[in-house]
Amino acid sequence: MAGSPLADQALAGEGLRKIHYSERIMPTLSALASRFASEKPFDGMTVAACLHVTAETAVLARVLRAGGARVALAASNPLSTQDDIAAALSSCEGVQVFAEAGADVGTYYSHIARAAEAGPDLVIDDGGDLVSTLHEASPDRMPIGGCESTATGVLRLRRMMAEGALRFPVIAASDTPAKRLVDDTHGTGQSVLDGLIRASGILLAGKTVVVAGFGTCGTGIAECARGLGARVVVTEVDPVRALDAALRGFRVLPLADAAPLGEVFITATGSADVITAEHMTLMRDGAILANAGHFDVEIDVRGLEDLAAVAEYHVRRHADAYELPDGRRLLLLAEGRVVNLVAAGGHPPEVMDLAFGIEALSLAWLARNAEKLLADVYPVPPDIDAEAARLMLTALGAGIDTLTEAQRAYLASWHTWR
Amino acid sequence: MAGSPLADQALAGEGLRKIHYSERIMPTLSALASRFASEKPFDGMTVAACLHVTAETAVLARVLRAGGARVALAASNPLSTQDDIAAALSSCEGVQVFAEAGADVGTYYSHIARAAEAGPDLVIDDGGDLVSTLHEASPDRMPIGGCESTATGVLRLRRMMAEGALRFPVIAASDTPAKRLVDDTHGTGQSVLDGLIRASGILLAGKTVVVAGFGTCGTGIAECARGLGARVVVTEVDPVRALDAALRGFRVLPLADAAPLGEVFITATGSADVITAEHMTLMRDGAILANAGHFDVEIDVRGLEDLAAVAEYHVRRHADAYELPDGRRLLLLAEGRVVNLVAAGGHPPEVMDLAFGIEALSLAWLARNAEKLLADVYPVPPDIDAEAARLMLTALGAGIDTLTEAQRAYLASWHTWR
Amino acid sequence: MAGSPLADQALAGEGLRKIHYSERIMPTLSALASRFASEKPFDGMTVAACLHVTAETAVLARVLRAGGARVALAASNPLSTQDDIAAALSSCEGVQVFAEAGADVGTYYSHIARAAEAGPDLVIDDGGDLVSTLHEASPDRMPIGGCESTATGVLRLRRMMAEGALRFPVIAASDTPAKRLVDDTHGTGQSVLDGLIRASGILLAGKTVVVAGFGTCGTGIAECARGLGARVVVTEVDPVRALDAALRGFRVLPLADAAPLGEVFITATGSADVITAEHMTLMRDGAILANAGHFDVEIDVRGLEDLAAVAEYHVRRHADAYELPDGRRLLLLAEGRVVNLVAAGGHPPEVMDLAFGIEALSLAWLARNAEKLLADVYPVPPDIDAEAARLMLTALGAGIDTLTEAQRAYLASWHTWR
Amino acid sequence: MAGSPLADQALAGEGLRKIHYSERIMPTLSALASRFASEKPFDGMTVAACLHVTAETAVLARVLRAGGARVALAASNPLSTQDDIAAALSSCEGVQVFAEAGADVGTYYSHIARAAEAGPDLVIDDGGDLVSTLHEASPDRMPIGGCESTATGVLRLRRMMAEGALRFPVIAASDTPAKRLVDDTHGTGQSVLDGLIRASGILLAGKTVVVAGFGTCGTGIAECARGLGARVVVTEVDPVRALDAALRGFRVLPLADAAPLGEVFITATGSADVITAEHMTLMRDGAILANAGHFDVEIDVRGLEDLAAVAEYHVRRHADAYELPDGRRLLLLAEGRVVNLVAAGGHPPEVMDLAFGIEALSLAWLARNAEKLLADVYPVPPDIDAEAARLMLTALGAGIDTLTEAQRAYLASWHTWR
Repeated sequence: MAGSPLADQALAGEGLRKIHYSERIMPTLSALASRFASEKPFDGMTVAACLHVTAETAVLARVLRAGGARVALAASNPLSTQDDIAAALSSCEGVQVFAEAGADVGTYYSHIARAAEAGPDLVIDDGGDLVSTLHEASPDRMPIGGCESTATGVLRLRRMMAEGALRFPVIAASDTPAKRLVDDTHGTGQSVLDGLIRASGILLAGKTVVVAGFGTCGTGIAECARGLGARVVVTEVDPVRALDAALRGFRVLPLADAAPLGEVFITATGSADVITAEHMTLMRDGAILANAGHFDVEIDVRGLEDLAAVAEYHVRRHADAYELPDGRRLLLLAEGRVVNLVAAGGHPPEVMDLAFGIEALSLAWLARNAEKLLADVYPVPPDIDAEAARLMLTALGAGIDTLTEAQRAYLASWHTWR
Repeated sequence: MAGSPLADQALAGEGLRKIHYSERIMPTLSALASRFASEKPFDGMTVAACLHVTAETAVLARVLRAGGARVALAASNPLSTQDDIAAALSSCEGVQVFAEAGADVGTYYSHIARAAEAGPDLVIDDGGDLVSTLHEASPDRMPIGGCESTATGVLRLRRMMAEGALRFPVIAASDTPAKRLVDDTHGTGQSVLDGLIRASGILLAGKTVVVAGFGTCGTGIAECARGLGARVVVTEVDPVRALDAALRGFRVLPLADAAPLGEVFITATGSADVITAEHMTLMRDGAILANAGHFDVEIDVRGLEDLAAVAEYHVRRHADAYELPDGRRLLLLAEGRVVNLVAAGGHPPEVMDLAFGIEALSLAWLARNAEKLLADVYPVPPDIDAEAARLMLTALGAGIDTLTEAQRAYLASWHTWR
Repeated sequence: MAGSPLADQALAGEGLRKIHYSERIMPTLSALASRFASEKPFDGMTVAACLHVTAETAVLARVLRAGGARVALAASNPLSTQDDIAAALSSCEGVQVFAEAGADVGTYYSHIARAAEAGPDLVIDDGGDLVSTLHEASPDRMPIGGCESTATGVLRLRRMMAEGALRFPVIAASDTPAKRLVDDTHGTGQSVLDGLIRASGILLAGKTVVVAGFGTCGTGIAECARGLGARVVVTEVDPVRALDAALRGFRVLPLADAAPLGEVFITATGSADVITAEHMTLMRDGAILANAGHFDVEIDVRGLEDLAAVAEYHVRRHADAYELPDGRRLLLLAEGRVVNLVAAGGHPPEVMDLAFGIEALSLAWLARNAEKLLADVYPVPPDIDAEAARLMLTALGAGIDTLTEAQRAYLASWHTWR
Repeated sequence: MAGSPLADQALAGEGLRKIHYSERIMPTLSALASRFASEKPFDGMTVAACLHVTAETAVLARVLRAGGARVALAASNPLSTQDDIAAALSSCEGVQVFAEAGADVGTYYSHIARAAEAGPDLVIDDGGDLVSTLHEASPDRMPIGGCESTATGVLRLRRMMAEGALRFPVIAASDTPAKRLVDDTHGTGQSVLDGLIRASGILLAGKTVVVAGFGTCGTGIAECARGLGARVVVTEVDPVRALDAALRGFRVLPLADAAPLGEVFITATGSADVITAEHMTLMRDGAILANAGHFDVEIDVRGLEDLAAVAEYHVRRHADAYELPDGRRLLLLAEGRVVNLVAAGGHPPEVMDLAFGIEALSLAWLARNAEKLLADVYPVPPDIDAEAARLMLTALGAGIDTLTEAQRAYLASWHTWR
């Protein structure tokens, strides 16, 4: 492969095997592969992508290729690059890969530059580096549109927009109703419990688990913990969310009241300093602290270190014990960093299947509609989110109904009635 | 009592007993009674209300009275008027009641007129007749503000607004996030199952229950049915709602596929002709049909009657059997009308406690803020909804936290970060 | 009908309609009707039964008749006799009914005597009066066998056995593993919640419900309450049962610790004085007390009356309020009697369907095997309990596997291995 | 340490740290340590134990030592011996350890012989080798009693008993009601799901999981899977267990009917050839097969290999893919061996805490009562099982009530009434 001189082609066989396996467990993308193979939405187009070079991304790349695109893929993070995947993917006709595990910063940006040089009609970005490079490097040849996968990247785009710099429409694919269900509530719910069990080894049945925060993530964590037999106490700052928790049968308490009760504490608030040293002084001997929030600021780890007479690191993998002056010990998992990514396998493949499904559909929509759009940041069109949900439902063996014309008419009249 | 010549005062003792009981099971209003007794938000004001004259309404009236208001209450429906409550309430100092069970239309409107004649500063309405009367009868003396309790009443207000007729600000109290939780999901969830069990007598454990619609009501019905041991199949037309159902572990099928499986069918869609004759021909012998939607259009009852060779009415109270030509029988509950109101006790008192709590807080807010408002229809201020949720949480023994200044600052910065 | 001069034949039509409806909701018996119609296990035999004369019993009688039996039915309690059912059943060929609603004691026993005079080959009894009558009245002509439906009746039989008086084999059908599941756990679970909701009107979501006793009934009550959104606290005296509750996620506390927490208390222990006056003094204002045990001794009602300054009876149907000297009120449901039978519809039909299915199968088994049995009290043969469970599973659309010969061999060898 | 020449003493520090951590998460044993320290039930006695030399066993050894015993510990399996634990434990006064990771068979038996030479008054065995050695090596000096931890060991004891060879009483501690709850239902339930998630990586929410077998293990697996959002189908051969599953809301089907529906299959039957090649030909592409039974005979792995056109081993760690001739792939986890032990962390510490608590209490009971016992195999006295359950409840913050004298009398009389 002329385009991928960097990868060790000897690894391609192993990489292909992983990609084939991932195709089996990513049914949304697999369905799109079939659809795109007949519809060819990207016929004659080039898609440049800057993404983690993993099996899941390879499945996406092949879906785009099936849709007629030439694909140029650069790594969005050299630490996540899997060389066997890079090799396998670059052996596919029409796909170029610029990626090397552990590449240095210079190499990283040169890879992105090479993807930009492909002259893409459409782009998928993960953090904003590809879009930024395109604006700087080839200001006279812009793509017709793109997708951004992360909240951070969307922020960069909005800043570009505010400065009048953005020159093509980009869909912010980081947050949709379907993604919130699959990623936040169920993906995070299961994987946080998974990380907790792996890092602590404990049996959840009968334990008191305090979940701080009852947003889309906290809801999933609380329900999964209850589903494994734990008694769950929820803490919240928002009365309506708290009422939701209470009416679902969870005990709802201020954290200071929950502190002496909990055997496990999990933060999922998005806020900072949720569990403070003051709370820690109230806790039972052996209490376990874990954070499920994106940033490692929810548990006051520095406060814990100040409080502790002795800290024993790595009493288990991903578990450190802190002994308070009175002999009680608290167990901190994953150093207070996001426990499902650190101590468990991270997001289940279903999460990436849906997320990439939304991005693939968004690109196909852009291929048809980009010329009607301004250079701006757009939300995912609701129809695309619905379509991705529908594909996931099909994969789960589920089906839905369609409103009849008469029902549409009734609902329209009823809405004015309301 | 000068103001209440119509009621039989001999019933007052019985009525007071019921009111006292309701005060015990309406903790949100009871908490407001204490607060208003010291804050006197309605000092010197008159509140006119047009509401169902029940024990719950009496508790609300006494809360307003505790807050310093003189209260004039007319019945919003003569069929729901309880004479003992009317008598008891009219024996309270500062409260006038105009209500008589079974009053004819003329009397009904004359009662509303007498409440309007009280010259109210604030009003609570249930359907729009009091507001309408005030605009027609005393155009020169308008209240400073009001609350409307029903969706239908809000529609009338919007039409008045559209025609430029509305002359004071009104808060649409029929729909808030907290009310949706308590009323739709949990109140309806429990009471629909209650109605189903009373009307049919069946054991739910092990039965296949098909719930059509997974909105706020359907969610509650499905979770309650599962909580009683049923296997629940959900039907939907919205893919994201359907995905929510599927990921919670419900089976999601088109209704035509669910029809041969269900032993019980419950509609909660807000749409029309959800269960059609065609579906009915697919159902098992003995299938039970119930509707939880507001209007009796979700099950095609006429289609069922056309289909049936024989209809046996009242095989049980609120249950009619229809025998299809091939001998199978379908059992229709409550003639397809809303099964929790017809066959069970309707809304639990907690629903009215929260709803009236929101209205009482809204009136107090209007007393302070109405002069800053235009003559328009306003949503319930989020702070009021949150405050009502907080009072309900307190009643349930729950408590929440408050964001620190540092947390507020972090969240603000984080939001720009996102 | 020569055999049923007492019933008003004009009621037969109404009664038949009820019986036909019950046949639809009793699938176990309906399946047996078909099977017996071809196998004729009772060909040429007479079955005498002493049972409550209700639609469910009528379905059983018709099953026995379908199996070839002549049936003579006497009422086991004149208060439960439904005259329309008696009339309808006595219009069926081959069935005699001796029953009259509200019959006096003399008539009651004369009816039983007439059933005994039918010279039965097999009997079904409900409390022991028919078996007793047969031993006294026709000592020279005994049935070949019988079934007893109640625990009390089984006790009488054991006493007869102990005194050497019992002269034919009787199967104690009051308690089997399948019956415990359907009747105790699920039947009682659902119907106790139903009775609680009807009598109190409250919303369960978010409420703290204390269930005293985690036996087969308490388990069902606790799971149903949780399924409706309540937070459930369990009290127990047996540590292993308590551990079961704790590991399922219920909070387990001594009753004195649970007393200040509960909004609802339900006793299901089989013991006496479970909730004492001492506990009551610890309870919250508005706490609700209900008993699900067979006898009305679990809540110390006399203690409550002594404690209360004022008792207000019938604040709602089946609800009495007791005001303690400090103003708190406790609400006693159904006077402390078994709340599902008093305030709700009692056992769902599925419970009688399974119970009568077990009895019908037991009679058929006796018809084949009685001559090999001694005059003694026998448990239901496990195969019969399994067969009834299998029929109920079929009715629920469920199916099971059968061990292969190889598997049987493996399991046998494995057991010796263990 | 004279008694432990084999262990590397440099490892003792690390081992002690692990032991201290385990003490924190084994509250039943910790409570017994305190109790035994004051009661000294083993004062002047020697206990010989043959157990896995792990941190959990070390905690048990220290409990026995706290109770006054000298302890001699030999490894029950050289593969599970942790040298740092051995070193740490042998540095404790009064404890001898004979263990070395990876020891050969000769060394293994010599270690057991050295433990036997300690001349124990009491023994704990794990498989029967220590008891056997004692009978052979020192026939003139028998312990007063012992405990056996495994089903296999109990079988050996029964054979010894049958041959008249057993010379002291032994308690079979492998199976009690409390242990079944903690170990089978909750311990296995959680850890099987953990193994499934680690090996397959999938999201359970929305997936159809078929659980073969609804015994004590299958019940836990099914409830945990449902608790994580899966739709669970149960297969059974026993109608009453199947009815239990159906009434809890699980779908119950023959395996041949479930085969085309499942995305995951978990066997927990104790039987052989539960999932056969015939079932596999019916399965969906991508179906995952896992076994939770003790032996690897429940999934017909040989049948799968014969069926498959291609087998790809290690598509993930602990996951092999088999491609059927028509292109469908089945994924076998852990080669069909017990998935929670192979792919996850095995039993949570709570399981060993309870199991060893029962053994420690049994030994203390033997110390007091052995002289009244014959040389035989005894079940765990129910009081001991109850006491262990009580200690675990205390650790979970739960408490129970005690029957009053009056209640005991009532229940006694009631039982005769029944």
